[in-house]
Amino acid sequence: MTATHLSAALPPGSTIGILGSGQLGRMLAMAAARLGLKCHVYADAPGPAFDVAAATTVAPYDDHAALDRFAASIRVATYEFENIPLATVEHLARHVPVRPGAKALATAQDRLNEKTLARALGSRTADFAAIDSRADLDTAIARHGTPAILKTRRFGYDGKGQAKILSPADATAALADMRGQPAILESFITFEREISVIAVRDTAGAFAAYDVTENVHRDHILHTATVPARIDASTQHAAIATTRGIAEAVDYIGVVAVEFFAAADALYVNEMAPRVHNSGHWTIDACVTSQFENHIRAVAGWPLGSTARHSDAVTTNLIGHDHDAWADLSAEPGSAVHLYGKRDARPGRKMGHVTRLSPKS
Amino acid sequence: MTATHLSAALPPGSTIGILGSGQLGRMLAMAAARLGLKCHVYADAPGPAFDVAAATTVAPYDDHAALDRFAASIRVATYEFENIPLATVEHLARHVPVRPGAKALATAQDRLNEKTLARALGSRTADFAAIDSRADLDTAIARHGTPAILKTRRFGYDGKGQAKILSPADATAALADMRGQPAILESFITFEREISVIAVRDTAGAFAAYDVTENVHRDHILHTATVPARIDASTQHAAIATTRGIAEAVDYIGVVAVEFFAAADALYVNEMAPRVHNSGHWTIDACVTSQFENHIRAVAGWPLGSTARHSDAVTTNLIGHDHDAWADLSAEPGSAVHLYGKRDARPGRKMGHVTRLSPKS
Repeated sequence: MTATHLSAALPPGSTIGILGSGQLGRMLAMAAARLGLKCHVYADAPGPAFDVAAATTVAPYDDHAALDRFAASIRVATYEFENIPLATVEHLARHVPVRPGAKALATAQDRLNEKTLARALGSRTADFAAIDSRADLDTAIARHGTPAILKTRRFGYDGKGQAKILSPADATAALADMRGQPAILESFITFEREISVIAVRDTAGAFAAYDVTENVHRDHILHTATVPARIDASTQHAAIATTRGIAEAVDYIGVVAVEFFAAADALYVNEMAPRVHNSGHWTIDACVTSQFENHIRAVAGWPLGSTARHSDAVTTNLIGHDHDAWADLSAEPGSAVHLYGKRDARPGRKMGHVTRLSPKS
Repeated sequence: MTATHLSAALPPGSTIGILGSGQLGRMLAMAAARLGLKCHVYADAPGPAFDVAAATTVAPYDDHAALDRFAASIRVATYEFENIPLATVEHLARHVPVRPGAKALATAQDRLNEKTLARALGSRTADFAAIDSRADLDTAIARHGTPAILKTRRFGYDGKGQAKILSPADATAALADMRGQPAILESFITFEREISVIAVRDTAGAFAAYDVTENVHRDHILHTATVPARIDASTQHAAIATTRGIAEAVDYIGVVAVEFFAAADALYVNEMAPRVHNSGHWTIDACVTSQFENHIRAVAGWPLGSTARHSDAVTTNLIGHDHDAWADLSAEPGSAVHLYGKRDARPGRKMGHVTRLSPKS
């Protein structure tokens, strides 16, 4: 495959590789199928994406022989979760384009890199400090004060790998919770609401964003995503401009999500996800082109689809046994029910979501 | 499986069997996946549906051993084309529910049965007569006059198995075109437009219809489907009421399509399709619940989803080399491009469709 090939749009019938077999991979595969593109899903265990994939591989992410066979069967690769080992992406990238690329992934995998980039681009973030030792933690607490929150720099999601430090007395227990992993201390921010921008950037550098979404979390897991967000136009513009700056800084290709804390007079970057995002699921039902299709379009070198929405929307996650209400939810007039085909409704597990549309306000 | 099981909604994770591997099966499988349901696609050759199915079988439709294995792997069966052998459906129905059932299929497979039912329900149709011999044809021409059209009673679609009779001198050639198959002579109707109703009926007898669609054919193949149709409210109500009557008469479960000719002062039933229909593809993009999801809901014993639409829509089929324009179409702002993953763009082959939305009028 030559550079010339890489910049052209992959024709229908081409195969896209997806690393990861979860519900995001499932919805990506379905979006690809709509465009006549096939998907080969590679994961270390079967998952919901396998049900809708033209081809599947179960192998460890560091199995180079399996990765090489995977690479030989696809024209481009992407991933559905940011905790994919960077080495896996770098290995694949020797054979096929991987989008988003290693630079974007390396940034998004590490909270310290994320926040450092955001600050470098002139955005606000919570105060933060790298924590590799007890001494680092004591220094940071002394400098930034409490309350604060200690987080692992990597592999955290849905509140995992986080410990609150309400007073310096909590430092020992919080550090123990990190289990020796590199960490970051972040100051608390007083904010009015959490918002996110779902945006997409294509191989030619074109950028488009969906309308800003307002998010409510419960137990550190997204509960509802509502569009439009209750923010003014200048906040909307600032959030989208910040997202664009981040995407351009890391040569991003695909859908990116950036989460913000919106305070009365300031906007703080919280974190980025180098992938389609739970807070953008409403785009399936409220837009002509969903975040999943736009990610596939970008990854496949196609032009971006419209990010305009025709309706207002509220997406509610179905977590764990929320899923048991599937029959009632499916009987609710006008609700769009999305279930991920997971067998066990374990507590905290994302089993599906429901999006309720209303006329555009 | 007992009758009690059959009347209950199949829980997420259940497997639905689909007979037929074409684009309709593909879009049905994708709709099922959205609801957390798996699909096993059975066909006599691989096709576009195989790319998105959790399981696939390639076997002849009269292979009882393969059908029995298929039946053992699924909770309910449906089909994506009406030319499935009735014996296949009857064989499967001894093991699992098949929806729509054999009665609906037997009616829809045969133009004579279709028109006879429509007349029995008080609807208008073109004048028609069964043609099993040259004597039948001469008698029918003498009675109904020319121009008329001779059609095979079964296995006709997209204009196949049809011959015009502009004068009695055309009778010999037209009859030869039937190749000895049972046929039906239909009088020409002068009409203003072709319309269709896509409707759905569930296991409890609930019925819902989408807004009437106006269809334009080119070379006997659907070219565009537009909603709303340019018809008055009484015509819309009459078309939907007729569709409901037909569905109830054959104990229909699933999505049914009925095509009509709308004349200045009358509505004529043309034909019915016991399946999701090309003229309903706009429901994917303009409704919360598409025809595909509603068919799956009905077949799986779920309550029906809303048939309301949020937008006006025009669907244009991509036939044969129309598909070559995929790159331009995908770059058109706001177009929803659907490609079926077929390899060869043969003339007359349905390769995909594009739906263009506009605000609801």
